[in-house]
Amino acid sequence: MAVGLKPLGEMYPVAGFRLATVAAGIKTPGRRDLVVMELAEGANCAAVFTRNAFCAAPVTIAKEHRARSAPRYLLINTGNANAGTGDSGLADARRCCNVLAEAAGVDADSVLPFSTGVIGEPLPVEKIVAAIPEAVKALDGASWGDAAHGILTTDTLPKGVSRRMMVMGEEITITGIAKGSGMIRPDMATMLAFIATNAAVAPHLLQRCLEEAVAHSFNAITVDGDTSTNDACLLVATGESALTVIDSEESERYRELLQAVTEVATELAQAIIRDGEGATKFITVDVRGGRSVDECRQVAYTVAHSPLVKTAFFASDPNWGRILAAVGRAGVDGLDVSRVEVHLDEVCIVRNGGRADEYEESAGQAVMDRDEITVSIDLARGASSARVWTSDLSHEYVKINAEYRT
Amino acid sequence: MAVGLKPLGEMYPVAGFRLATVAAGIKTPGRRDLVVMELAEGANCAAVFTRNAFCAAPVTIAKEHRARSAPRYLLINTGNANAGTGDSGLADARRCCNVLAEAAGVDADSVLPFSTGVIGEPLPVEKIVAAIPEAVKALDGASWGDAAHGILTTDTLPKGVSRRMMVMGEEITITGIAKGSGMIRPDMATMLAFIATNAAVAPHLLQRCLEEAVAHSFNAITVDGDTSTNDACLLVATGESALTVIDSEESERYRELLQAVTEVATELAQAIIRDGEGATKFITVDVRGGRSVDECRQVAYTVAHSPLVKTAFFASDPNWGRILAAVGRAGVDGLDVSRVEVHLDEVCIVRNGGRADEYEESAGQAVMDRDEITVSIDLARGASSARVWTSDLSHEYVKINAEYRT
Repeated sequence: MAVGLKPLGEMYPVAGFRLATVAAGIKTPGRRDLVVMELAEGANCAAVFTRNAFCAAPVTIAKEHRARSAPRYLLINTGNANAGTGDSGLADARRCCNVLAEAAGVDADSVLPFSTGVIGEPLPVEKIVAAIPEAVKALDGASWGDAAHGILTTDTLPKGVSRRMMVMGEEITITGIAKGSGMIRPDMATMLAFIATNAAVAPHLLQRCLEEAVAHSFNAITVDGDTSTNDACLLVATGESALTVIDSEESERYRELLQAVTEVATELAQAIIRDGEGATKFITVDVRGGRSVDECRQVAYTVAHSPLVKTAFFASDPNWGRILAAVGRAGVDGLDVSRVEVHLDEVCIVRNGGRADEYEESAGQAVMDRDEITVSIDLARGASSARVWTSDLSHEYVKINAEYRT
Repeated sequence: MAVGLKPLGEMYPVAGFRLATVAAGIKTPGRRDLVVMELAEGANCAAVFTRNAFCAAPVTIAKEHRARSAPRYLLINTGNANAGTGDSGLADARRCCNVLAEAAGVDADSVLPFSTGVIGEPLPVEKIVAAIPEAVKALDGASWGDAAHGILTTDTLPKGVSRRMMVMGEEITITGIAKGSGMIRPDMATMLAFIATNAAVAPHLLQRCLEEAVAHSFNAITVDGDTSTNDACLLVATGESALTVIDSEESERYRELLQAVTEVATELAQAIIRDGEGATKFITVDVRGGRSVDECRQVAYTVAHSPLVKTAFFASDPNWGRILAAVGRAGVDGLDVSRVEVHLDEVCIVRNGGRADEYEESAGQAVMDRDEITVSIDLARGASSARVWTSDLSHEYVKINAEYRT
């Protein structure tokens, strides 16, 4: 029961980028669970990965390969995360890369592996390698929609965003897909997002563009505070548009690209929250008036992670005391609570350290009955701000996660 | 459905300490919801309070009064937290103290107020003051059991511990009660715990004794990570035992008292977890081999707060990958995951960065089927350790907190 998440719109192909989705039978027989992506020779690829110390085997291998060679192929499976699998997990990820490299006629270092699904089970390597040749044959520029389905786990809907825009008179395309529904509190990026553009972008600038976009999109969402072991986000620039190479941070072209990539990343990140496990509400937590972005994020995440705040949202209960308690325990040094203001959408609920004088329960109830709600918190002690998106905590979340492996 | 929480045993009176519990009709008509406690003249009283910046009005007043005068009376209501109530909340708490002071013939500064219940509603002062005279008349040394019931909110069972011990040939008594079930991640102490002894203890030593005991008991539990606005824990020493005053930290008597108070506080703190909202499991998270106690606590709390770990416990699912992912995201700098070991009770689940070779799902399942489980995590990088107790995340937790105000 995703909140305000529309069906996939048109997904424009990106010249120099092809995809294929096939059934390898990894967890569910017949499920199209294996995706291969091909980057044309000369494409640049920026990437960010999870900072979870127990990062998965494919994350380790992807980082290793990327340090040695320009990526040409991405191999993504769902149904098994290949995380917490030790040395044999690393060997399994390498084997899959080798088989794809051979089938495609490239070096194994130019293949990056990605996995999502259950942690701690051995990767069913034989099923994956058996399906690779068919995938290589099926590569096609128009298959973004299939791939958006192919990478899902507990997601209920595919997540994809595609944009065309004119820059200096030349059309460029940006298309991206993402997955994720639980174990979502990305710390660098969320598992998994793949964004491609046909623009030509210098490698250092592409990486910078991705990191800036991710900071305001994937790194600003949380379902349950649980940073995944497999998070990764890639931005590919194939360079096949007619626009000349973007190589200066000061250029108008770079700023337009950054804005467009940030928009695509934000819409994908929000889609993950809209489809968060058990989500019935889409919540924006907006904190301003802080002394630093860090303290604003700290307050925003404390509110967004509070099980009491999240269950109140699930119940559509304007129990604003729980928001106030979460702000109070967020660890902001020397916070003057008598200056803090909290709004639910347009309704002021907290002022002068307590319930706002004009507040009426019926007004709070009217906001809480909405599917999409913004909590605005003004700390009134500085000029910094931060924004985080989250979902509520429902019976369905407990059900999904109590029964996930069964 | 509290986990392994026994009915109240015998609650020994503490000479110099009397209690009364009466019905003020604060939230539920007929419920005995107001408790008065009386400390004999000359009793010492140590206290710790919540660090939530939005601390409740009674917490502010209790701190103020305690700074000015030795406490003689404690006034505790359930059903309303008098938190987030601004200036009128402070006035309400003062008014209640004044009425009790007058009825008892003491100065208002020697009354400390405590409230627990819904945040953000005005305190029903008239109902409280109307019930005070009856309470003062009913004061009695044997009424600990009634008081243990009187301070509950969403708790399903009362929590009390009482001990008698011989020190230097003299008998001393320690009796304490606590409440708390949700919004439990104390940061100093949990709302509400009252412990009394008839030993004579110098004031500075009594405060130190309380702080040490709380560090290893109330400050080592979490239900939902939500630090309450109303937390408080008091330790009273009436000095009416025959044992001479305890005034040196080096003395054997102090060490015995500290140990006994810590035991009482720990049993009360564990009782709060056993009766945690919706709890079906009692989980001990034991972290050792850290470079500092802080990093061990950080890992322990990350595991204890993870909604994914907590739902796996609820489902009795040995989904150890979630524990591993939580350890990995706990932010321990430079953690070498290949050295980390994780046990569920006696079963090793993680070694060398992945599933332990000898691990079998049936062994993990056998542990997870238990009501009480210890997760032991060895970081293998130092000599520090920390222990935290928590509960699981069940359908019932969501139900309780989605419906609390209705």
